[in-house]
Amino acid sequence: MAKSKDKRAEPGAYQAAGVNIAAQDEGLRAVKELARSTFTAGVLSEIGSFGGLFRPDLAGLAEPVLVASADGVGTKLAVARMAGDYSTVGRDLVNHCVNDILVQGARPLFFLDYVGAGVLEPAKMIELVRGVADGCRENGCALLGGETAEMPGFYQPGDYELVGFIVGLADRANVLTGARVADGDILLGLPSAGLHTNGYSLARRILFDQLGLRMKDALPGLSPRLTVGAWLLAPHLSYLQPLAPLLAEPGLHALAHITGGGLTDNLPRVLPDGLAAEIRLGSWEIPAPFHLLQEKGDIELEEMFRVFNMGIGMVALVAPAAAAEMSRRLAAAGQRALPIGRVVQGPKGVVYDLGLTSFES
Amino acid sequence: MAKSKDKRAEPGAYQAAGVNIAAQDEGLRAVKELARSTFTAGVLSEIGSFGGLFRPDLAGLAEPVLVASADGVGTKLAVARMAGDYSTVGRDLVNHCVNDILVQGARPLFFLDYVGAGVLEPAKMIELVRGVADGCRENGCALLGGETAEMPGFYQPGDYELVGFIVGLADRANVLTGARVADGDILLGLPSAGLHTNGYSLARRILFDQLGLRMKDALPGLSPRLTVGAWLLAPHLSYLQPLAPLLAEPGLHALAHITGGGLTDNLPRVLPDGLAAEIRLGSWEIPAPFHLLQEKGDIELEEMFRVFNMGIGMVALVAPAAAAEMSRRLAAAGQRALPIGRVVQGPKGVVYDLGLTSFES
Repeated sequence: MAKSKDKRAEPGAYQAAGVNIAAQDEGLRAVKELARSTFTAGVLSEIGSFGGLFRPDLAGLAEPVLVASADGVGTKLAVARMAGDYSTVGRDLVNHCVNDILVQGARPLFFLDYVGAGVLEPAKMIELVRGVADGCRENGCALLGGETAEMPGFYQPGDYELVGFIVGLADRANVLTGARVADGDILLGLPSAGLHTNGYSLARRILFDQLGLRMKDALPGLSPRLTVGAWLLAPHLSYLQPLAPLLAEPGLHALAHITGGGLTDNLPRVLPDGLAAEIRLGSWEIPAPFHLLQEKGDIELEEMFRVFNMGIGMVALVAPAAAAEMSRRLAAAGQRALPIGRVVQGPKGVVYDLGLTSFES
Repeated sequence: MAKSKDKRAEPGAYQAAGVNIAAQDEGLRAVKELARSTFTAGVLSEIGSFGGLFRPDLAGLAEPVLVASADGVGTKLAVARMAGDYSTVGRDLVNHCVNDILVQGARPLFFLDYVGAGVLEPAKMIELVRGVADGCRENGCALLGGETAEMPGFYQPGDYELVGFIVGLADRANVLTGARVADGDILLGLPSAGLHTNGYSLARRILFDQLGLRMKDALPGLSPRLTVGAWLLAPHLSYLQPLAPLLAEPGLHALAHITGGGLTDNLPRVLPDGLAAEIRLGSWEIPAPFHLLQEKGDIELEEMFRVFNMGIGMVALVAPAAAAEMSRRLAAAGQRALPIGRVVQGPKGVVYDLGLTSFES
């Protein structure tokens, strides 16, 4: 959103071809200010140059490693559109990206965004980037640049695509790979705030197509009252602040960000061969809206754990001796962390323990 | 494209909601191989982890600076779709991004891509990423990761969005900012291969809507014969190989990548206040398709220079004493470079000198 020229400043005949320059310029000015509000000490470039310049602080790092990730927010964008509110998905995107590099032991340096639309409405573009800038500031991450593309006929009117790209820094010795994960490790589950950014296609089908609910309707059977819109747009949480102080702790063996694929697919990404994650169902309260989705959508529990995060947004795999102290430190930082299972010997994968019976995934 | 879990591996009920997992998995395997083919010495991570890991070689750099850029290929994607050929736009995207950081003095380290579609057809996804991987290999840039998102109902069937992010490295002392540009500097123009990635909305309107041409038709009045499709899909050139050896030359004062906004908007991005770029029309041959667009679209010349690159993809602003030697070195590297004007005193902007009269933009 912040690089000023590419596919932006093409006036005149271009206007007739569907590219609205004045509207772009109006939004662009606001967007530059938003980006500037996120600038950290490393930022060298003023917005408007061809690329963004960032001088990383390498002091104290024996072997600096860059960690990068790209992501979108999926069809949560369709929910934002239904709500007429694009102000929150930007933060979702930043937090998702921050978590994706955090689990490898990295702290964020900078972020770039891409906004695509058929016709850019300045107000919507500003909402989108405001959310991105909010997320960046909250994570101490500079919004270094980006791109807006007005592509007439490519996107449906009112639809916006939002893509993010993050770069962070870690010392190689502290990069988390899962290699330290061992039999007996404790799984600490950090609660999510909702769907985060995954499972929206299915959730929308159940809530809107099947149940015929609208955004402002209350989710049926829930107390206290929670609207469909409020739950679906609940923010993707960033776990950077509570977890960053623990990254160099030898007892922190791995982190798994629970995104698409759920606990079932994301935990094995940090498990060495011959180790499984045993999840004890009942060790945390699965938020009621997930039960609603399961019941109304007639979805198997196994399926639920693969499509949705089921109330757990991040899992820390920690040495048994360190688990209590880590929970205490997380609690002191305002972060709940519940023991939801442990690492056991077995084929790499996740075993769900229901108390009486168990199923493997 | 290369991060394996997010919004990819959600099976079963998700399938019914429009997300085609098997097709995604099929494409993903091929995509991982393509990414691996680009890996350079700095790549630490295997594909499939949450974020990509890259260890930059900082040897010899007094003050390492990261240079990053985000971009799309705009509605060139619509042309690729008409041609039924998504194999070239990936290279366009990489080359565009490489040029965007090259003009700040940076060599590329790594690239990440994002592919969005309503329904991902594996063959199309592979074509797209093959182009990205080709471009990465040609520029010595690792395809470190990426994301594919299948967003049912968001994109029109057959449409693909392609977004790229690049990170490069420069020593701060060699970062090009335009601050060294001085009165009398020579503008060396490096030819483009076509539209590169800008002006497609207008070009498509003229060629397809107005003239009723089809992709396989010859561009009218051109000799030798050149089809509409061949010209529109001509690759965005990377100028990294010829220009990289000159980056540390004190005589190289600035580089301007001629993208959206043309010479008119991109040259001022590297001009200090009080200096203008005087472009001598006639100093290079504007390729015939641009004349065709101008004539058939009834577009003012001033407008043409703002929407299209007019045959110049990159401009090097060089000290007069260094111009001849730089041209010679570029020629030796197989790169044509034509003196197309000079830097003069005046309000920051571009002056087009037609020989008899001139106009300012």
